[in-house]
Amino acid sequence: MENGAGNGVAVAAAAAWNFAPNEALLGLTALSVRGVLGRVKAGMVADGGGARAVVPMGHGDPSAFPCFRTAPEAVDAVAGALRSGEHNSYPTSVGLEPARRSIAKYLSRDLPYELSPDDIYLTSGCSQAIEIICSVLARPGANILLPRPGYLFYEARAAFNGMEARYFNLLPENDWEVDIDGVQALADDNTVAMVIVNPGNPCGNVYTYEHLAKASSDKLVAETAQKLGIFVITDEVYAHLTFGERKFVPMGVFGTVVPVFTLGSISKRWVVPGWRLGWIVTNDPNGVFQRTKVVDCMKSYLDISSDPPTFVQGAIPKLLENTKEEFFNKTVKILRETADICWEKLKGINSITCPSKPEGSMFVMVKLDLSCLQDIKDDMDFCCRLAKEELVVLLPGCAVGYKNWLRITFAIDPSSLEDGLDRLKSFCLRHNKPTK
Amino acid sequence: MENGAGNGVAVAAAAAWNFAPNEALLGLTALSVRGVLGRVKAGMVADGGGARAVVPMGHGDPSAFPCFRTAPEAVDAVAGALRSGEHNSYPTSVGLEPARRSIAKYLSRDLPYELSPDDIYLTSGCSQAIEIICSVLARPGANILLPRPGYLFYEARAAFNGMEARYFNLLPENDWEVDIDGVQALADDNTVAMVIVNPGNPCGNVYTYEHLAKASSDKLVAETAQKLGIFVITDEVYAHLTFGERKFVPMGVFGTVVPVFTLGSISKRWVVPGWRLGWIVTNDPNGVFQRTKVVDCMKSYLDISSDPPTFVQGAIPKLLENTKEEFFNKTVKILRETADICWEKLKGINSITCPSKPEGSMFVMVKLDLSCLQDIKDDMDFCCRLAKEELVVLLPGCAVGYKNWLRITFAIDPSSLEDGLDRLKSFCLRHNKPTK
Ligand SMILES: Cc1ncc(COP(=O)(O)O)c(C=O)c1O
Ligand SMILES: Cc1ncc(COP(=O)(O)O)c(C=O)c1O
Repeated sequence: MENGAGNGVAVAAAAAWNFAPNEALLGLTALSVRGVLGRVKAGMVADGGGARAVVPMGHGDPSAFPCFRTAPEAVDAVAGALRSGEHNSYPTSVGLEPARRSIAKYLSRDLPYELSPDDIYLTSGCSQAIEIICSVLARPGANILLPRPGYLFYEARAAFNGMEARYFNLLPENDWEVDIDGVQALADDNTVAMVIVNPGNPCGNVYTYEHLAKASSDKLVAETAQKLGIFVITDEVYAHLTFGERKFVPMGVFGTVVPVFTLGSISKRWVVPGWRLGWIVTNDPNGVFQRTKVVDCMKSYLDISSDPPTFVQGAIPKLLENTKEEFFNKTVKILRETADICWEKLKGINSITCPSKPEGSMFVMVKLDLSCLQDIKDDMDFCCRLAKEELVVLLPGCAVGYKNWLRITFAIDPSSLEDGLDRLKSFCLRHNKPTK
Repeated sequence: MENGAGNGVAVAAAAAWNFAPNEALLGLTALSVRGVLGRVKAGMVADGGGARAVVPMGHGDPSAFPCFRTAPEAVDAVAGALRSGEHNSYPTSVGLEPARRSIAKYLSRDLPYELSPDDIYLTSGCSQAIEIICSVLARPGANILLPRPGYLFYEARAAFNGMEARYFNLLPENDWEVDIDGVQALADDNTVAMVIVNPGNPCGNVYTYEHLAKASSDKLVAETAQKLGIFVITDEVYAHLTFGERKFVPMGVFGTVVPVFTLGSISKRWVVPGWRLGWIVTNDPNGVFQRTKVVDCMKSYLDISSDPPTFVQGAIPKLLENTKEEFFNKTVKILRETADICWEKLKGINSITCPSKPEGSMFVMVKLDLSCLQDIKDDMDFCCRLAKEELVVLLPGCAVGYKNWLRITFAIDPSSLEDGLDRLKSFCLRHNKPTK
């Protein structure tokens, strides 16, 4: 590559550079909620500015609403760790021992065996947990099985590491259960893991013990994974955010049948996604991860990764111990209320169908009936115009791998939610095809 | 891959798994200071436990020493942002605007032009900044030029992304200046960038304006990079930690000659490596990064990366504004004192030579004369035995790509430093070859 001679401004501007953009990387934005919501909101920012407030039902982050304000004990724990001056240093790669010990204890409550602190690896939120797992599992030719619809961050990180993503279906008519036959048909010798998200994003589903164990007739999810020689990654970032009939059951209860990586964080249950503290847990009483060297690979990767802040790690024991049950109950109560509002109001919108009432997380998936609507091209178009005309932000299904559906976040202040859903209804009415 | 039939404990233990460890990844630990120090300390932990304290001169993290305690204004800024409750949400991918604005202002003081908030991208410490830059620049066949000795985190992250690392020399006899001829000889059409670390880790060097501009005779570092069509990445994580004759000059002053990525963080100047807040800055008044789509690639990658905690971002404006000059002066004064102690005491150890007095960062590189020592195999052996026998931790040169040298961190409490260096001397005396 030849550059012109000379120096200074003109030259630098005219020079040819050896850098070439990684086109694959440029495409990954399309797989991120952030990237897609950016496009949805773009038109709104330009045209909005009226008296009406924006209703943010796109992103799963209720922390800005006063009714979802985090527990004061959690704030005190972090402030105390910060002020102690004892947590300004670099942490160890796997995370501070007291934090890992207390997370092991916290998670063991729901398990038939005890986790040890060595089963816990601290991460910068569940996002970095996903990044680390994908980095560790990727090898030339490997593939990973992901749910559709799903949280595309997995696909983006797998793609970045050159790992192929294959999709199995979640079945809307069966409360978004896993299509086990589909999983079996997809897997081959290069399949290293399958991902389960429970409680579900984007579907709001909660899997029963029976489904996790026994999906259809006599096939076990856990056992299926084991027979196929693949690990299970369970994303339980919404753990305990359940408000229906079904209680949260961690996949780790099947850790003796199949080795399970549990990914989680304090982002959702404590409503502090900005604090960036998560974990990877090895639910593996048989030591498969040790024997197959996954653990060594993970430790190596952690040696060359950035860590969650030391003082947030230092705060974890008190944060877990001191947060009162009432705080969790209050959050779940609001989610139950908002899920109800959502379910009822959606029934009244003719171009939208909701296959099942959400029982967990903070989302519901609804189907767009484009045949009822005039002049709306697809889910993206729907969301962009809704944002522009009504200042209501929803996530188009394409951002979760489900074209012409919508993901609605109901974890917002109840009155804003009612307002937002009313505006959604007006929008749909306005764009309805005229009845003949 | 076939697994046996049956279920439960026995099966999971016996099953064959599709996962195969990534051998390249397993090797990366050897390129990390953490990994190598882990090995150095392993023997010590097992055999230690005497009355003497461990003297930690291996890791560049003085934050545990009371004399290096961070500024109270910095703690107040973070505690205030946390308690406000306004920073619990996810941040934007590039980082909060007020934080980016204040960092732009802070860094512009040392530049002949004004940075804009859009030039700043917030990261989880300088470590994640390195990770992001390597992820963005890597493409099949690309290579990157790194200094030797150097901070091997660059090599580890480049290797993980499949980018080739090539090394140019720093010249110990010339205050560790860059061997410009070497750079020219290494670069080809696939060279995307070169890395400069200033003030230097592991060398403790500080580059003059003249060296940065004009290295030897008429060759410009910046212009060389430009002629070769490669970007400059300057790691200025130790910015302003200078205590000799030479003042810190940011590479960004040459941003019109060659586009520069400046990487930095609050870890070192504020002595809070556990807070994990860093940045990538585009020093590029000519908009080359924009035009070549590096900026787009970086934004895409940030969309699928974890962020630094929102409340630490929220604290940045006050942290930068309120930290008093006296705090910085105090830190530099202690570093000057400890650098002096180190320099003087090392003169008295016959098997160790120190080519130049450190003027910046917190490290010095010294040469081990193995011919003076009996029964010591190499730098790693030296450090392991020193740790075991004297509870003094140094970093073997192999961890910075410089076999049979040592990196000494002098940023510790002055009396511990004297103690540590005295123990180093006894160790060397004890292992000296008997003089005939
Ligand atoms: C399924 C799922 N996994 C992981 C994450 C990331 O969580 P964190 O905030 O802990 O990084 C999210 C965030 O929305 C999510 O929905
Ligand atoms: C040259 C260099 N760059 C980057 C880093 C990482 O800094 P941070 O703590 O901001 O991640 C270090 C840490 O020691 C370093 O020495």
